Amino acid sequence: MEAAAELFAEKGFRATTVRDIAEEAGVLSGSLYAHIDTKEDLYLEIVRRAADDFSRAVRPWADAGLAPAEKLGRMIRAHLEVIGASRAWARVYLDDDNQLSDATRRQARQLRRDYERWWDQVLEEGMASGAFQVPDETMARLFILSALNGMIRWFRPDGRLTAEQVAEAYVILVKRVLGAIDTSAP
Amino acid sequence: MEAAAELFAEKGFRATTVRDIAEEAGVLSGSLYAHIDTKEDLYLEIVRRAADDFSRAVRPWADAGLAPAEKLGRMIRAHLEVIGASRAWARVYLDDDNQLSDATRRQARQLRRDYERWWDQVLEEGMASGAFQVPDETMARLFILSALNGMIRWFRPDGRLTAEQVAEAYVILVKRVLGAIDTSAP
Repeated sequence: MEAAAELFAEKGFRATTVRDIAEEAGVLSGSLYAHIDTKEDLYLEIVRRAADDFSRAVRPWADAGLAPAEKLGRMIRAHLEVIGASRAWARVYLDDDNQLSDATRRQARQLRRDYERWWDQVLEEGMASGAFQVPDETMARLFILSALNGMIRWFRPDGRLTAEQVAEAYVILVKRVLGAIDTSAP
Repeated sequence: MEAAAELFAEKGFRATTVRDIAEEAGVLSGSLYAHIDTKEDLYLEIVRRAADDFSRAVRPWADAGLAPAEKLGRMIRAHLEVIGASRAWARVYLDDDNQLSDATRRQARQLRRDYERWWDQVLEEGMASGAFQVPDETMARLFILSALNGMIRWFRPDGRLTAEQVAEAYVILVKRVLGAIDTSAP
Protein backbone atom coordinates (compact mmCIF):
# COMPACT_ATOMS: atom_id res chain seq x y z
CA MET A 1 0.00 0.00 0.00
CA GLU A 2 2.74 2.43 1.00
CA ALA A 3 4.81 1.55 -2.07
CA ALA A 4 1.78 1.95 -4.34
CA ALA A 5 0.85 5.31 -2.81
CA GLU A 6 4.40 6.61 -3.34
CA LEU A 7 4.43 5.49 -6.97
CA PHE A 8 0.92 6.70 -7.82
CA ALA A 9 1.77 10.08 -6.29
CA GLU A 10 5.12 10.27 -8.08
CA LYS A 11 4.43 8.80 -11.53
CA GLY A 12 0.66 8.79 -11.79
CA PHE A 13 -1.73 5.85 -11.83
CA ARG A 14 -1.40 4.73 -15.43
CA ALA A 15 2.38 4.92 -15.62
CA THR A 16 2.73 2.74 -12.50
CA THR A 17 2.73 -0.98 -13.16
CA VAL A 18 1.97 -3.73 -10.67
CA ARG A 19 5.56 -4.86 -11.29
CA ASP A 20 6.82 -1.38 -10.22
CA ILE A 21 4.80 -1.63 -7.02
CA ALA A 22 6.05 -5.14 -6.30
CA GLU A 23 9.65 -4.04 -6.89
CA GLU A 24 9.27 -0.98 -4.65
CA ALA A 25 7.73 -3.14 -1.95
CA GLY A 26 10.43 -5.80 -2.39
CA VAL A 27 8.05 -8.64 -3.25
CA LEU A 28 7.23 -10.61 -6.40
CA SER A 29 4.32 -9.47 -8.60
CA GLY A 30 2.80 -12.89 -8.06
CA SER A 31 2.68 -12.46 -4.29
CA LEU A 32 1.13 -9.02 -4.76
CA TYR A 33 -1.67 -10.56 -6.83
CA ALA A 34 -2.39 -12.88 -3.92
CA HIS A 35 -3.48 -9.76 -1.99
CA ILE A 36 -5.08 -7.56 -4.65
CA ASP A 37 -7.29 -8.20 -7.65
CA THR A 38 -6.44 -5.17 -9.78
CA LYS A 39 -4.39 -1.98 -9.68
CA GLU A 40 -7.65 -0.03 -9.44
CA ASP A 41 -8.57 -1.94 -6.26
CA LEU A 42 -5.24 -0.95 -4.79
CA TYR A 43 -5.86 2.67 -5.73
CA LEU A 44 -9.30 2.66 -4.14
CA GLU A 45 -7.93 1.07 -0.99
CA ILE A 46 -5.37 3.89 -0.71
CA VAL A 47 -8.09 6.51 -1.19
CA ARG A 48 -10.22 4.72 1.40
CA ARG A 49 -7.44 4.69 3.98
CA ALA A 50 -6.49 8.30 3.30
CA ALA A 51 -10.15 9.29 3.64
CA ASP A 52 -10.15 7.44 6.97
CA ASP A 53 -7.03 9.34 8.08
CA PHE A 54 -8.62 12.69 7.26
CA SER A 55 -11.94 11.73 8.84
CA ARG A 56 -10.39 10.38 12.01
CA ALA A 57 -8.44 13.63 12.46
CA VAL A 58 -11.21 16.06 11.53
CA ARG A 59 -14.53 14.48 12.46
CA PRO A 60 -14.10 14.65 16.26
CA TRP A 61 -13.73 18.42 15.96
CA ALA A 62 -16.75 18.75 13.69
CA ASP A 63 -18.80 16.97 16.35
CA ALA A 64 -17.19 18.71 19.35
CA GLY A 65 -19.18 20.95 21.69
CA LEU A 66 -17.42 24.11 20.50
CA ALA A 67 -18.40 27.31 18.73
CA PRO A 68 -18.32 26.96 14.90
CA ALA A 69 -15.26 29.22 14.45
CA GLU A 70 -13.33 27.25 17.08
CA LYS A 71 -14.37 23.91 15.50
CA LEU A 72 -13.31 25.12 12.10
CA GLY A 73 -9.93 26.27 13.37
CA ARG A 74 -9.31 22.81 14.86
CA MET A 75 -10.50 21.10 11.67
CA ILE A 76 -8.12 23.17 9.54
CA ARG A 77 -5.19 22.33 11.80
CA ALA A 78 -6.07 18.63 11.73
CA HIS A 79 -6.58 18.58 7.95
CA LEU A 80 -3.28 20.34 7.22
CA GLU A 81 -1.48 18.11 9.70
CA VAL A 82 -2.59 15.04 7.72
CA ILE A 83 -1.39 16.70 4.48
CA GLY A 84 1.93 17.62 6.06
CA ALA A 85 2.49 14.19 7.58
CA SER A 86 1.59 11.78 4.78
CA ARG A 87 2.14 13.42 1.46
CA ALA A 88 1.90 10.45 -0.93
CA TRP A 89 -1.37 9.06 0.48
CA ALA A 90 -2.90 12.49 0.76
CA ARG A 91 -1.88 13.42 -2.78
CA VAL A 92 -3.40 10.25 -4.22
CA TYR A 93 -6.56 10.97 -2.25
CA LEU A 94 -6.86 14.64 -3.20
CA ASP A 95 -6.03 14.22 -6.88
CA ASP A 96 -9.07 13.67 -9.04
CA ASP A 97 -7.09 11.23 -11.16
CA ASN A 98 -8.18 11.25 -14.78
CA GLN A 99 -6.45 7.96 -15.53
CA LEU A 100 -8.95 5.75 -13.73
CA SER A 101 -12.00 3.90 -14.95
CA ASP A 102 -15.25 5.82 -14.51
CA ALA A 103 -16.47 3.42 -11.82
CA THR A 104 -13.32 3.78 -9.70
CA ARG A 105 -13.26 7.53 -10.20
CA ARG A 106 -16.87 7.76 -9.08
CA GLN A 107 -16.14 5.76 -5.92
CA ALA A 108 -13.09 7.89 -5.12
CA ARG A 109 -15.19 11.03 -5.56
CA GLN A 110 -17.84 9.64 -3.26
CA LEU A 111 -15.24 9.03 -0.56
CA ARG A 112 -14.07 12.64 -0.89
CA ARG A 113 -17.64 13.93 -0.81
CA ASP A 114 -18.37 11.91 2.34
CA TYR A 115 -15.42 13.56 4.05
CA GLU A 116 -16.38 17.04 2.82
CA ARG A 117 -19.71 16.70 4.57
CA TRP A 118 -18.00 17.37 7.92
CA TRP A 119 -16.99 20.72 6.51
CA ASP A 120 -20.48 21.39 5.15
CA GLN A 121 -21.93 20.54 8.55
CA VAL A 122 -19.81 23.10 10.39
CA LEU A 123 -20.29 25.74 7.69
CA GLU A 124 -24.06 25.31 7.93
CA GLU A 125 -23.92 25.43 11.70
CA GLY A 126 -21.94 28.68 11.58
CA MET A 127 -24.32 30.18 9.04
CA ALA A 128 -27.34 29.21 11.11
CA SER A 129 -25.92 30.72 14.29
CA GLY A 130 -24.73 33.86 12.52
CA ALA A 131 -21.08 33.08 13.34
CA PHE A 132 -20.24 32.85 9.62
CA GLN A 133 -21.47 35.10 6.83
CA VAL A 134 -20.99 33.99 3.23
CA PRO A 135 -23.01 34.65 0.07
CA ASP A 136 -23.02 30.95 -0.97
CA GLU A 137 -22.07 28.04 1.29
CA THR A 138 -21.11 25.63 -1.48
CA MET A 139 -18.81 28.15 -3.12
CA ALA A 140 -17.31 29.01 0.26
CA ARG A 141 -16.58 25.33 0.91
CA LEU A 142 -15.03 24.84 -2.55
CA PHE A 143 -12.95 28.00 -2.11
CA ILE A 144 -11.72 27.02 1.34
CA LEU A 145 -10.93 23.35 0.63
CA SER A 146 -9.13 24.27 -2.61
CA ALA A 147 -7.04 26.79 -0.69
CA LEU A 148 -6.19 24.23 2.02
CA ASN A 149 -5.59 21.30 -0.34
CA GLY A 150 -3.29 23.44 -2.49
CA MET A 151 -0.74 22.95 0.28
CA ILE A 152 -0.06 19.45 -1.06
CA ARG A 153 1.49 21.06 -4.15
CA TRP A 154 3.90 23.49 -2.57
CA PHE A 155 4.61 22.30 0.98
CA ARG A 156 8.06 20.81 1.58
CA PRO A 157 8.87 19.35 5.02
CA ASP A 158 12.36 20.90 4.71
CA GLY A 159 11.04 24.30 3.54
CA ARG A 160 10.87 27.69 5.25
CA LEU A 161 7.58 26.91 6.99
CA THR A 162 6.44 24.07 9.25
CA ALA A 163 2.99 22.56 8.74
CA GLU A 164 2.00 24.19 12.07
CA GLN A 165 3.01 27.63 10.83
CA VAL A 166 1.00 27.17 7.66
CA ALA A 167 -1.99 26.03 9.73
CA GLU A 168 -1.64 29.01 12.05
CA ALA A 169 -1.78 31.46 9.12
CA TYR A 170 -4.45 29.56 7.20
CA VAL A 171 -6.82 29.44 10.18
CA ILE A 172 -6.78 33.23 10.22
CA LEU A 173 -7.34 33.48 6.46
CA VAL A 174 -10.23 30.99 6.46
CA LYS A 175 -11.94 32.76 9.35
CA ARG A 176 -11.71 35.94 7.33
CA VAL A 177 -13.26 34.20 4.30
CA LEU A 178 -16.19 33.27 6.50
CA GLY A 179 -16.51 36.67 8.12
CA ALA A 180 -16.21 34.63 11.31
CA ILE A 181 -17.43 36.11 14.54
CA ASP A 182 -16.50 33.98 17.52
CA THR A 183 -19.83 33.63 19.32
CA SER A 184 -18.20 31.73 22.17
CA ALA A 185 -16.69 34.98 23.43
CA PRO A 186 -18.17 36.06 26.76
CA MET B 1 -2.00 21.93 -30.03
CA GLU B 2 -5.70 21.89 -29.24
CA ALA B 3 -5.88 18.11 -29.69
CA ALA B 4 -2.82 17.62 -27.50
CA ALA B 5 -4.17 19.89 -24.76
CA GLU B 6 -7.45 17.96 -24.70
CA LEU B 7 -5.67 14.62 -24.47
CA PHE B 8 -3.10 15.71 -21.86
CA ALA B 9 -5.91 17.16 -19.74
CA GLU B 10 -8.07 14.06 -20.17
CA LYS B 11 -5.62 11.15 -20.02
CA GLY B 12 -2.46 12.70 -18.61
CA PHE B 13 0.86 13.33 -20.31
CA ARG B 14 2.38 9.88 -20.17
CA ALA B 15 -0.69 7.96 -21.28
CA THR B 16 -1.08 10.18 -24.36
CA THR B 17 0.93 9.04 -27.39
CA VAL B 18 1.93 11.17 -30.36
CA ARG B 19 -0.22 8.80 -32.41
CA ASP B 20 -3.25 9.65 -30.19
CA ILE B 21 -2.64 13.34 -30.78
CA ALA B 22 -2.27 12.87 -34.54
CA GLU B 23 -5.48 10.83 -34.64
CA GLU B 24 -7.41 13.38 -32.59
CA ALA B 25 -6.11 16.16 -34.86
CA GLY B 26 -6.89 14.14 -37.97
CA VAL B 27 -3.33 14.07 -39.32
CA LEU B 28 -0.63 11.41 -39.66
CA SER B 29 1.98 11.03 -36.88
CA GLY B 30 4.64 11.71 -39.52
CA SER B 31 3.21 15.12 -40.37
CA LEU B 32 3.01 15.94 -36.67
CA TYR B 33 6.71 15.22 -36.32
CA ALA B 34 7.36 17.75 -39.06
CA HIS B 35 6.10 20.39 -36.62
CA ILE B 36 7.30 19.14 -33.24
CA ASP B 37 10.43 17.44 -32.00
CA THR B 38 9.09 15.64 -28.94
CA LYS B 39 5.91 15.26 -26.92
CA GLU B 40 7.56 17.29 -24.14
CA ASP B 41 8.07 20.20 -26.58
CA LEU B 42 4.40 20.07 -27.40
CA TYR B 43 3.55 20.08 -23.71
CA LEU B 44 5.77 23.09 -23.05
CA GLU B 45 4.29 24.94 -26.00
CA ILE B 46 0.80 24.42 -24.54
CA VAL B 47 1.94 25.65 -21.14
CA ARG B 48 3.60 28.65 -22.82
CA ARG B 49 0.44 29.59 -24.72
CA ALA B 50 -1.78 29.09 -21.68
CA ALA B 51 0.62 31.26 -19.64
CA ASP B 52 0.30 33.88 -22.39
CA ASP B 53 -3.50 33.67 -22.22
CA PHE B 54 -3.49 34.20 -18.47
CA SER B 55 -0.90 36.99 -18.66
CA ARG B 56 -2.66 38.81 -21.46
CA ALA B 57 -5.91 38.79 -19.49
CA VAL B 58 -4.48 39.64 -16.07
CA ARG B 59 -1.36 41.77 -16.59
CA PRO B 60 -3.14 44.91 -17.89
CA TRP B 61 -5.09 45.04 -14.64
CA ALA B 62 -1.98 44.52 -12.51
CA ASP B 63 -0.44 47.53 -14.25
CA ALA B 64 -3.60 49.65 -14.34
CA GLY B 65 -3.87 52.95 -12.48
CA LEU B 66 -6.35 51.59 -9.94
CA ALA B 67 -6.43 50.99 -6.20
CA PRO B 68 -4.98 47.56 -5.22
CA ALA B 69 -8.35 46.10 -4.17
CA GLU B 70 -9.92 47.18 -7.46
CA LYS B 71 -6.98 45.79 -9.48
CA LEU B 72 -7.19 42.51 -7.64
CA GLY B 73 -10.93 42.22 -8.26
CA ARG B 74 -10.34 42.69 -12.00
CA MET B 75 -7.45 40.21 -11.99
CA ILE B 76 -9.59 37.56 -10.29
CA ARG B 77 -12.38 38.03 -12.82
CA ALA B 78 -9.90 37.82 -15.71
CA HIS B 79 -8.13 34.75 -14.28
CA LEU B 80 -11.38 32.84 -13.67
CA GLU B 81 -12.69 33.81 -17.09
CA VAL B 82 -9.65 32.15 -18.69
CA ILE B 83 -10.24 29.03 -16.56
CA GLY B 84 -13.94 28.99 -17.46
CA ALA B 85 -13.33 29.50 -21.18
CA SER B 86 -10.48 27.12 -21.99
CA ARG B 87 -10.50 24.22 -19.60
CA ALA B 88 -8.09 21.81 -21.30
CA TRP B 89 -5.28 24.36 -21.82
CA ALA B 90 -5.73 25.84 -18.40
CA ARG B 91 -5.74 22.44 -16.75
CA VAL B 92 -2.54 21.39 -18.48
CA TYR B 93 -1.01 24.71 -17.41
CA LEU B 94 -2.15 24.59 -13.80
CA ASP B 95 -1.32 20.92 -13.20
CA ASP B 96 2.15 20.37 -11.85
CA ASP B 97 2.42 17.23 -13.94
CA ASN B 98 4.57 14.60 -12.29
CA GLN B 99 4.99 12.64 -15.51
CA LEU B 100 7.42 15.04 -17.18
CA SER B 101 11.19 15.10 -17.30
CA ASP B 102 12.77 17.31 -14.63
CA ALA B 103 13.93 19.85 -17.22
CA THR B 104 10.47 20.28 -18.74
CA ARG B 105 8.85 20.39 -15.34
CA ARG B 106 11.27 23.10 -14.25
CA GLN B 107 10.49 25.20 -17.32
CA ALA B 108 6.74 24.80 -16.83
CA ARG B 109 7.14 25.86 -13.20
CA GLN B 110 9.13 28.90 -14.25
CA LEU B 111 6.34 29.94 -16.64
CA ARG B 112 3.84 29.65 -13.81
CA ARG B 113 6.10 31.59 -11.44
CA ASP B 114 6.52 34.37 -14.01
CA TYR B 115 2.76 34.72 -14.21
CA GLU B 116 2.35 34.63 -10.43
CA ARG B 117 4.59 37.66 -10.14
CA TRP B 118 1.70 39.89 -11.29
CA TRP B 119 -0.18 38.70 -8.26
CA ASP B 120 2.81 39.24 -5.97
CA GLN B 121 3.19 42.74 -7.36
CA VAL B 122 -0.38 43.74 -6.51
CA LEU B 123 -0.27 42.03 -3.13
CA GLU B 124 2.91 43.93 -2.25
CA GLU B 125 1.39 47.18 -3.48
CA GLY B 126 -1.67 46.63 -1.32
CA MET B 127 0.44 45.75 1.70
CA ALA B 128 2.64 48.84 1.22
CA SER B 129 -0.35 51.15 0.93
CA GLY B 130 -2.15 49.54 3.86
CA ALA B 131 -5.03 48.43 1.61
CA PHE B 132 -4.31 44.76 2.39
CA GLN B 133 -3.37 43.25 5.74
CA VAL B 134 -1.98 39.71 5.83
CA PRO B 135 0.44 38.00 8.20
CA ASP B 136 2.57 36.55 5.34
CA GLU B 137 2.35 37.64 1.70
CA THR B 138 3.68 34.40 0.20
CA MET B 139 1.22 32.29 2.15
CA ALA B 140 -1.58 34.66 1.21
CA ARG B 141 -0.69 34.32 -2.48
CA LEU B 142 -0.49 30.52 -2.26
CA PHE B 143 -3.81 30.40 -0.39
CA ILE B 144 -5.57 32.67 -2.87
CA LEU B 145 -4.24 31.14 -6.09
CA SER B 146 -4.99 27.62 -4.82
CA ALA B 147 -8.54 28.71 -4.02
CA LEU B 148 -8.98 30.27 -7.48
CA ASN B 149 -7.28 27.48 -9.43
CA GLY B 150 -9.38 24.87 -7.65
CA MET B 151 -12.21 26.02 -9.91
CA ILE B 152 -10.65 23.99 -12.74
CA ARG B 153 -11.56 20.82 -10.83
CA TRP B 154 -15.20 21.44 -10.10
CA PHE B 155 -16.48 24.00 -12.59
CA ARG B 156 -18.79 22.69 -15.32
CA PRO B 157 -19.99 25.09 -18.05
CA ASP B 158 -23.44 23.41 -17.85
CA GLY B 159 -23.54 23.51 -14.02
CA ARG B 160 -25.58 25.60 -11.57
CA LEU B 161 -23.17 28.55 -11.68
CA THR B 162 -21.72 30.62 -14.52
CA ALA B 163 -18.04 31.58 -14.45
CA GLU B 164 -19.18 35.18 -13.83
CA GLN B 165 -21.17 34.16 -10.76
CA VAL B 166 -18.19 32.27 -9.37
CA ALA B 167 -15.96 35.29 -10.02
CA GLU B 168 -18.47 37.60 -8.33
CA ALA B 169 -18.45 35.50 -5.16
CA TYR B 170 -14.71 34.78 -5.22
CA VAL B 171 -13.79 38.47 -5.51
CA ILE B 172 -15.62 39.06 -2.23
CA LEU B 173 -13.95 36.08 -0.54
CA VAL B 174 -10.44 37.05 -1.69
CA LYS B 175 -10.90 40.64 -0.52
CA ARG B 176 -11.86 39.26 2.86
CA VAL B 177 -8.73 37.09 2.92
CA LEU B 178 -6.68 40.23 2.40
CA GLY B 179 -8.58 42.30 4.92
CA ALA B 180 -9.00 44.63 1.95
CA ILE B 181 -9.82 48.25 2.56
CA ASP B 182 -10.56 50.10 -0.64
CA THR B 183 -8.31 53.15 -0.34
CA SER B 184 -9.75 54.61 -3.54
CA ALA B 185 -12.97 55.44 -1.69
CA PRO B 186 -13.41 59.18 -1.23
